[in-house]
Amino acid sequence: MQAEIISCGTELLLGQISDTNATYLAQSLAVLGIDLYYVSQVGDNQRRIVETLRRAWSRSDLIIMTGGLGPTEDDLTREAISELMGERMQIDSQLEVDLRARFTRLGMGMPERNLKQATLIPSAQSLPNPIGSAPGWFVERDGHIIVAMPGVPREMFRMWEEQVILCLQKYTGGLIFTRILRVYGIGETTVEERLGELVHMTNPTVATYVKSDAVDVRISAKAEQREVAEQLVAGVVQQVRDVLGDAIFGEGKITLLEIVGKLLNERGWMLSVMESLTGGLLASMITDVSGSSSYFVGGFVTYATELKAQMGVPREVLKGYGAVSEETARAMAHAVRMQLKTDVGLGITGVAGPILQEGKPAGTVHIAVEGPKGVVTGQSIGGRGDRRDNKRHSTLTALNLLRKYLED
Amino acid sequence: MQAEIISCGTELLLGQISDTNATYLAQSLAVLGIDLYYVSQVGDNQRRIVETLRRAWSRSDLIIMTGGLGPTEDDLTREAISELMGERMQIDSQLEVDLRARFTRLGMGMPERNLKQATLIPSAQSLPNPIGSAPGWFVERDGHIIVAMPGVPREMFRMWEEQVILCLQKYTGGLIFTRILRVYGIGETTVEERLGELVHMTNPTVATYVKSDAVDVRISAKAEQREVAEQLVAGVVQQVRDVLGDAIFGEGKITLLEIVGKLLNERGWMLSVMESLTGGLLASMITDVSGSSSYFVGGFVTYATELKAQMGVPREVLKGYGAVSEETARAMAHAVRMQLKTDVGLGITGVAGPILQEGKPAGTVHIAVEGPKGVVTGQSIGGRGDRRDNKRHSTLTALNLLRKYLED
Repeated sequence: MQAEIISCGTELLLGQISDTNATYLAQSLAVLGIDLYYVSQVGDNQRRIVETLRRAWSRSDLIIMTGGLGPTEDDLTREAISELMGERMQIDSQLEVDLRARFTRLGMGMPERNLKQATLIPSAQSLPNPIGSAPGWFVERDGHIIVAMPGVPREMFRMWEEQVILCLQKYTGGLIFTRILRVYGIGETTVEERLGELVHMTNPTVATYVKSDAVDVRISAKAEQREVAEQLVAGVVQQVRDVLGDAIFGEGKITLLEIVGKLLNERGWMLSVMESLTGGLLASMITDVSGSSSYFVGGFVTYATELKAQMGVPREVLKGYGAVSEETARAMAHAVRMQLKTDVGLGITGVAGPILQEGKPAGTVHIAVEGPKGVVTGQSIGGRGDRRDNKRHSTLTALNLLRKYLED
Repeated sequence: MQAEIISCGTELLLGQISDTNATYLAQSLAVLGIDLYYVSQVGDNQRRIVETLRRAWSRSDLIIMTGGLGPTEDDLTREAISELMGERMQIDSQLEVDLRARFTRLGMGMPERNLKQATLIPSAQSLPNPIGSAPGWFVERDGHIIVAMPGVPREMFRMWEEQVILCLQKYTGGLIFTRILRVYGIGETTVEERLGELVHMTNPTVATYVKSDAVDVRISAKAEQREVAEQLVAGVVQQVRDVLGDAIFGEGKITLLEIVGKLLNERGWMLSVMESLTGGLLASMITDVSGSSSYFVGGFVTYATELKAQMGVPREVLKGYGAVSEETARAMAHAVRMQLKTDVGLGITGVAGPILQEGKPAGTVHIAVEGPKGVVTGQSIGGRGDRRDNKRHSTLTALNLLRKYLED
């Protein structure tokens, strides 16, 4: 099966956004074993979209489109597909009901122009969009498939992962079984070095991918039968676990946050945090997880040094060791744990950057976890990039320290 | 002049890298006033590159290629251009001397296969590469131009900025001037409705773009002279300001966060926050801005209701009105302002979701700002999506309320 991606949107051709959707889809197609030969970006112009689509139809089995499903006059993906297919767009009554209900839930009236988001053509079935107003289209005719998805990345990701991949399964022939091991605390190069010859195998294949919250090690095998592929993968998973040990924090899509939440719940422990350089990001990431109120009460964002003292860090520690020090991190963990009466307290302090603080470079971070098992500390020295990178890296380092504390 | 970008590299089609070169070139072309209608990515396959190139030649005046100029068998850009033009690649003696000298400087012998990096065709002139081994090609024939540059972004950037733009100057004639107005608090559809006929103009053009933190209204005009384009844009900017009023928070790339920081600095006011459903995200976004310590001391993440009481929200307010209420938001703003002794206190409480809280749906949010000018409150009812969306939307709504408070 040969695939082709067409990304629609004048904003791409003006360089206002990068086509990260195409990158994501390309990765996913590679894993599915579907060949991708062409990617095109085209502006919001029906003639040019149809021209690009017509060529894709002539040379590819699967055409994946993103963007152009909004309600405005510039959103022309539905119109272009209809023109190519010679089929007329008609309002689908169920889609209209769903769309109007969505606007009602949001407490607004639906602008009439949104109605075109409730249309279909005879060859298209609708792909529901649980987090946006634009449903997708799955069009099948004459041995070709056109998938049209929204351009908003998180809407597209979800539609692709939850719906489109399932619809495509019957075409991908042979089947690929994949497991992903998630690694934190060692870099991609170190991971690859430890994996050694494993990365040169052909079935299963072992590959590493740097994600924003982990290095993923992906083990994929292809076979006619699922059981065979599963067994091939299982053997290699064990080998990878042997060489990477507890740097692996989980499997699949699980995040450090989910692991930490699960471990806290299992122990029945409540957590509080006092954070400085991360400025609220640690608490925010923890509360991104639904159900986090069962193990997280909240915390203090002590961005100003004076506020650390006000919240219980002894002034002699701040003066003697500096606000960016292991001792201050320990005192923060202790103070928040005592004040908020939780089982576990976590303190994190450091330099977000871009300028030095107390002579320490951006990216310097000290972390302490205090709980029923005593205290552990961790640190990371040297920046990874800008403020946001440093905040994110520091937050993940803290979560990884907490994960190891809870696991042991 | 119509341009088209062709990016070569199988790594793009495997999703291993994103095509940031195309984004960069697209931005640059927009500024130069050169229309870009198509961008394509194609793998390292000569037949497919030539096919893509031939089509581009038939419809575009300027074809910009990146990638495929390395020394390996997979690097086929030169070969593809030669095939299209029907011209033979020949080693250029000066290029060969330069290339061998480069390897000598690096203390290595030159592998013979690198020799193809010293080739030209009769219609091509060489574009020196001061930081890599691959020179570019500037091909001019029959009223068409092909520019071939390396795929390594920093090599490409430099070749483009220092050489290609100069070569193109004689063709560009006319230039585009753009201003962007940033809007928060009303949706894209409402923005478009209020803009009415403005969105149908042709010079200047007015277009709306949904960003994660705003709706952008972009006004662009084309003219021979910059002053003329500027004037055309200025007139329409005024019309857009008239219809959108204080929903416009800024211009260009500025963010709500930067505006809020600037306004706080101007007034010399310090800010503290007490946040519930946003779980630290508000503080985290504020501290994403470098220099935020000059107006932000920190705050409390009072995720658990009990913690709100512990941090100074009267229990009778929590009991009488509920944790998710305007009264609680007011009490949070007041409590954090008093406890942390700041000029301005902001309280935000609501339901992140997915489940109801106190019978209120996910996405319900109450915000209060208390400061030297008294108290203002804001609210938003009904969810936009998942927890993260609700948190992000709530945080931006809080910043927008704070912005209006500080502006008035």
